[in-house]
Amino acid sequence: MTISLFAPLDMHLHLREGAMLRLVAPFSAAQFTGAVIMPNLVPPVDNLDRLAAYEAEIRSAVASYPFMPLMTLFFRAYDAATLHALRGRIFAIKLYPEGVTTNSTGGVSDLEAIEPTLAVMEELGIPLLVHGESHGFVLDRETEFLPVYERWAQTFPRLRIVMEHITTAAALELLDRYPNLFATVTLHHLLITLDDVAGGLLQPHLFCKPIAKRPSDRDALLAAALSGHPKLMFGSDSAPHPIERKEAAFCAAGIFSAPVLLPMLVELFERHHALDRLPDFVSGNACRIHGLKPPQREVRLVEDPWTVPPRYGDVVPFAAGQTLRWRVLTD
Amino acid sequence: MTISLFAPLDMHLHLREGAMLRLVAPFSAAQFTGAVIMPNLVPPVDNLDRLAAYEAEIRSAVASYPFMPLMTLFFRAYDAATLHALRGRIFAIKLYPEGVTTNSTGGVSDLEAIEPTLAVMEELGIPLLVHGESHGFVLDRETEFLPVYERWAQTFPRLRIVMEHITTAAALELLDRYPNLFATVTLHHLLITLDDVAGGLLQPHLFCKPIAKRPSDRDALLAAALSGHPKLMFGSDSAPHPIERKEAAFCAAGIFSAPVLLPMLVELFERHHALDRLPDFVSGNACRIHGLKPPQREVRLVEDPWTVPPRYGDVVPFAAGQTLRWRVLTD
Repeated sequence: MTISLFAPLDMHLHLREGAMLRLVAPFSAAQFTGAVIMPNLVPPVDNLDRLAAYEAEIRSAVASYPFMPLMTLFFRAYDAATLHALRGRIFAIKLYPEGVTTNSTGGVSDLEAIEPTLAVMEELGIPLLVHGESHGFVLDRETEFLPVYERWAQTFPRLRIVMEHITTAAALELLDRYPNLFATVTLHHLLITLDDVAGGLLQPHLFCKPIAKRPSDRDALLAAALSGHPKLMFGSDSAPHPIERKEAAFCAAGIFSAPVLLPMLVELFERHHALDRLPDFVSGNACRIHGLKPPQREVRLVEDPWTVPPRYGDVVPFAAGQTLRWRVLTD
Repeated sequence: MTISLFAPLDMHLHLREGAMLRLVAPFSAAQFTGAVIMPNLVPPVDNLDRLAAYEAEIRSAVASYPFMPLMTLFFRAYDAATLHALRGRIFAIKLYPEGVTTNSTGGVSDLEAIEPTLAVMEELGIPLLVHGESHGFVLDRETEFLPVYERWAQTFPRLRIVMEHITTAAALELLDRYPNLFATVTLHHLLITLDDVAGGLLQPHLFCKPIAKRPSDRDALLAAALSGHPKLMFGSDSAPHPIERKEAAFCAAGIFSAPVLLPMLVELFERHHALDRLPDFVSGNACRIHGLKPPQREVRLVEDPWTVPPRYGDVVPFAAGQTLRWRVLTD
């Protein structure tokens, strides 16, 4: 049996730079026809020159694939002139509250002061992608941030706001309350809970931000994805770190899922008899929400079990050692 | 300035065996006049021969100190004859529900079936020490276990039941409801929350079971300890693992706090102007609750800052790299 997916998109991806980018980017390009590229490098991608150089680096690393990087800029309180210059040259702007995740130093510390920038983004049709976490107790951070989404959704009703990598049932509920709110969800948040991270032995390779939550949250996210929720898009948040930054006294946040994404998504949706909903989840919803026209490309998977290797280079992948039923056919 | 503590006791301690025991036991013996020794070795300490051999191994490792190991037996559904033979030869019996923590394989899987054993323990005055966690969501396990404590406290009103290493405000509330319920609390659960474990970078050396909970839980535990709660005893749950089992893909649960216990307790109680409550917390309460008569020994601490080393042998201690104000004077 073969499964074909038309123009799958990963709407939230960390590709890093240099050798790490060259290691990880081909996994995404082999499976996806495009991806939204996160800008939280050190220093962040916060101007067009840096963005152009980064895009060139990505394109060079995946030159053998018809892959469309959807470039994002790191949120600053850009003025109107800057935003006008950005229009049409970026996919979106990604907002990190100061210090909430990997390389978010220099993020936004005063969420009210940035509203003039949001007003111009709304006017120009530039989407706002948000890492929505407060600085509160680790399990409450996403929920505590929801009133900020709500305020923005009300204040800027034409601003397209994407709640990135949502992890809670509460975020899903908010999604349905405002027409200009959208969300991405990762593969791993459809599968794991905090019990997988810290309920048995502690598993640093399952540690990410936002941290996995309760079974009831995971179940709500999975039900929404399987049901074909039209405002929910797949975004892997694949975020590689070398093993020495994971199996360490201070372990960096991030799960490297890029090599296993489509095989595991197909298996998950198939197990729940929802394969017919997968095309919208990994492509259709994003195309409709953002008006995307990705390269015309079919990605095919064949039933051919394989075991995820313990490492790719110096990075431990999600589901290392697990046997997956589906394999992506390379062209 | 010098502070003297009379007969401090660590009411919950993991000493391991062999080389690890020889490495870690002197830290406890230098600071405490006695400690309750956990029996979850592999295989567990579940008979008097094994217990005698283990006690001899401990005494040999700390021969230069007047240290009293309070030996415990791993809970089995012991029959009345066995329990009669145990009386006076053990301090207590430690109950682990099956599979809830390090080396708890072979623990109790049917909590109702063991009630005949509890009835005889009550009759003979053998205390029951309990790792009270369910198999539910990691943050709910202690709270979900509370009804079990409640049932036992009601059914066996003369059985001395110790809720070991409590981590929640809910457990504290239960403590006040039944005269035969007591509790131990660790140093680390008076200091850290889940935010310290997983709120920034993931910190495997702060990973333990039960896992640290919310700030409101930590604050309630600290307030109870500082107030001199008469049913709350200090028990470190110091639980060393070699670094290769902590900074790993699957990290073992346990914090090695033995080297820093009294210095950090003195500093903590002093900071909260509660030094006068420390003697009861680290000795008086336990002596009254259990009728203990520990060796007559004063442990003195002097104000003389020192920095906790990054490792002792192959074990990373709690508070590694921190500078502590108080130092234990060795005799």
